[in-house]
Amino acid sequence: MRAELISIGDELLLGQTVNTNAAWMGERLAQIGVRLYQVSTITDEGDHILKALEEAEQRADLILLTGGLGPTKDDITKEVLCQYFNTELEMNNDVLAWIDNAFKRLGREMLEVNSLQAALPKAAKIVRNDRGTASGMWFEKNGKVFISMPGVPYEMKAMMKNDILPALQEKFNTTSLNQRTILTQGMGEGFLAKRIKDWEDRLRANGLSLAYLPSLGIVKLRVSAPSADQLGVFTQELYQLIPELIFGEGKDTLAKVVGELLIKSKATLATAESCTGGAISSAITSVPGASAYFNGAIVSYSNTAKTAELGVSEELLKTHGAVSEAVALQMVKGAAKSLESDYAISTTGIAGPDGGTEEKPVGTVWIGLRTPSSITARCFQLFGQRQQIVERSTMTALNLLRKAILIENGW
Amino acid sequence: MRAELISIGDELLLGQTVNTNAAWMGERLAQIGVRLYQVSTITDEGDHILKALEEAEQRADLILLTGGLGPTKDDITKEVLCQYFNTELEMNNDVLAWIDNAFKRLGREMLEVNSLQAALPKAAKIVRNDRGTASGMWFEKNGKVFISMPGVPYEMKAMMKNDILPALQEKFNTTSLNQRTILTQGMGEGFLAKRIKDWEDRLRANGLSLAYLPSLGIVKLRVSAPSADQLGVFTQELYQLIPELIFGEGKDTLAKVVGELLIKSKATLATAESCTGGAISSAITSVPGASAYFNGAIVSYSNTAKTAELGVSEELLKTHGAVSEAVALQMVKGAAKSLESDYAISTTGIAGPDGGTEEKPVGTVWIGLRTPSSITARCFQLFGQRQQIVERSTMTALNLLRKAILIENGW
Repeated sequence: MRAELISIGDELLLGQTVNTNAAWMGERLAQIGVRLYQVSTITDEGDHILKALEEAEQRADLILLTGGLGPTKDDITKEVLCQYFNTELEMNNDVLAWIDNAFKRLGREMLEVNSLQAALPKAAKIVRNDRGTASGMWFEKNGKVFISMPGVPYEMKAMMKNDILPALQEKFNTTSLNQRTILTQGMGEGFLAKRIKDWEDRLRANGLSLAYLPSLGIVKLRVSAPSADQLGVFTQELYQLIPELIFGEGKDTLAKVVGELLIKSKATLATAESCTGGAISSAITSVPGASAYFNGAIVSYSNTAKTAELGVSEELLKTHGAVSEAVALQMVKGAAKSLESDYAISTTGIAGPDGGTEEKPVGTVWIGLRTPSSITARCFQLFGQRQQIVERSTMTALNLLRKAILIENGW
Repeated sequence: MRAELISIGDELLLGQTVNTNAAWMGERLAQIGVRLYQVSTITDEGDHILKALEEAEQRADLILLTGGLGPTKDDITKEVLCQYFNTELEMNNDVLAWIDNAFKRLGREMLEVNSLQAALPKAAKIVRNDRGTASGMWFEKNGKVFISMPGVPYEMKAMMKNDILPALQEKFNTTSLNQRTILTQGMGEGFLAKRIKDWEDRLRANGLSLAYLPSLGIVKLRVSAPSADQLGVFTQELYQLIPELIFGEGKDTLAKVVGELLIKSKATLATAESCTGGAISSAITSVPGASAYFNGAIVSYSNTAKTAELGVSEELLKTHGAVSEAVALQMVKGAAKSLESDYAISTTGIAGPDGGTEEKPVGTVWIGLRTPSSITARCFQLFGQRQQIVERSTMTALNLLRKAILIENGW
């Protein structure tokens, strides 16, 4: 079955807001077996909304609308819906009590415009909004379903997840897609595609599908299958094919996975960062509870800092240069010692745009790694602009660390 | 005049990619006086593209298309355009030479699918793509303009900026909007709106418009005016009204502004970070050339690190707790000393979700500041989830530093 989304709001067309609702909606609908066929982003004008409803009704079985339900005068969706479905607004006392109560809890005064949000179309089944004052409205007409929701992503997503998606699945009796997203680090999209080509060909021949979702330093592989069994078989094969590249699934992050491994092995971590400028430390501390295993970081941007804080001798800097194996090794030794940590990672490289030479071009990054039993360093040539090189260095360093913890513990 | 955008691509409807092109397009069109009236995101299917073209032609004077121009079989936009404009493909030798050359420069083999990208509709004026192999195509029909571009943002944006926007302005003789975006830090959107209410009312009464564009810790104020004179008058008034909140305009960032001030005053900087976990250091080093003034950071996540690296005594930690004025002050002293810097900032706080107490709830953040002539610390109560508190702390600290450098130098 086909769905369409009508996103209402001048702010989307003026470029003040990116329409992130559309991608979220498309993904969630696909998961319950509904195909999003078109998204129309339109102005707050009544005629425009009516026209978009007419057009969408011709093409789709399910029409979702977001936006235009706020308490201000600009937001006219509700009136337009009454016109389209030939109905009128009436005060809904349950909703009124809910809004009243929400304002009381917040200790804020309820204005008349707020109470008017409880005036809702008679013909609509009301979808409760737990996170705001604009209710959802579910209409049916000629066997087609129309659902109007607020445009605020936080409110819309809760309504979709809690009420609308389950109700749609029941009503249209669609089949949930079997899906898993496997997260990889260490190989670009193109090379990865080449590496898993045979597996991908067989997967497609068997009616499954695969999406490559690349972000900086990471490639996500989303596998969709008609049956859970097939999904299990093919993902297991993938794990056997590229075990060293896979670090997790779904919402995992490298920083989270590394944190879990450190907790499991009762070990601590420190970083010594030059070209990443604190980005690795930032990623690690973005995980709640990181203080259990992360002791800290030394961002040694100047050579003086490398010498004073990490014991990198001036001699070493002069002989090898700051971006060198010797310096990466000494940085990681220094960090493990001064921050009293079992593991340590270091980075020293050229993030650009300036500072590159023929011998060490922009993107040259040395990553040092200290484990309880070894100290090593590796050189990488990373692509991109300054921020991309920093991000790729961060992901590469975290994945090296992840693999080292696994080896160290024989996992 | 009215414009519409047709975004072509299954990946947008499956939620694999967020349609950021649409917001960018809307903003740029508004700047040259063209109103984006609708965005239709559609599938890669020929019939769907034809239907979308027909509908858009009825509503708009300018129809922009993005996507569907890649070398793979899925991408059929070009054939559909030939059908719609009753024309046919012919090999364009200039474009072929350009593509051939691009592959040679990259040292990559040119495949037949790539050379086919030089086969372009006879009826179209070709828009050169400097960043890729898919050309833009400009068609005219019944006084309306249709422009097809690649969907890759990096390629599309270059074509729009360099060729298409200037050509549209000339052809339709539209008037550029006079616009300035003033960047503020230190006050939430609601309080800021209250503070500048009278000014905003007068601004609107004079036919100017104002958009609040909030992001974490920052509120951007975009002022649009019919004339450059009015824009100048009203923005100048704003500078007089909230001088302490404004840190820049347009594409400025706090880290960049702080960097420029440090270079101007020939001074150096260090950070000592606990709750921000390296985020301030990360922000500062995201600016190219930061090594000229940034010596480094000590992320003292553990108490041991605070003691060993920053000279925060165990006594002090026991008496006041890690999140305290005394510790913030000592951290900033320690960082300035060990990283030999003129200025230093420190953070110690509770980013959550755990660790809060009644006395020091989640969001309590002490920020220490050391200048060549003073050492101070201030306490902030910041809202949000863990990452939001980190981001707000970072912006708050950078703005405190900015103001301190100005005062220190009498600017």
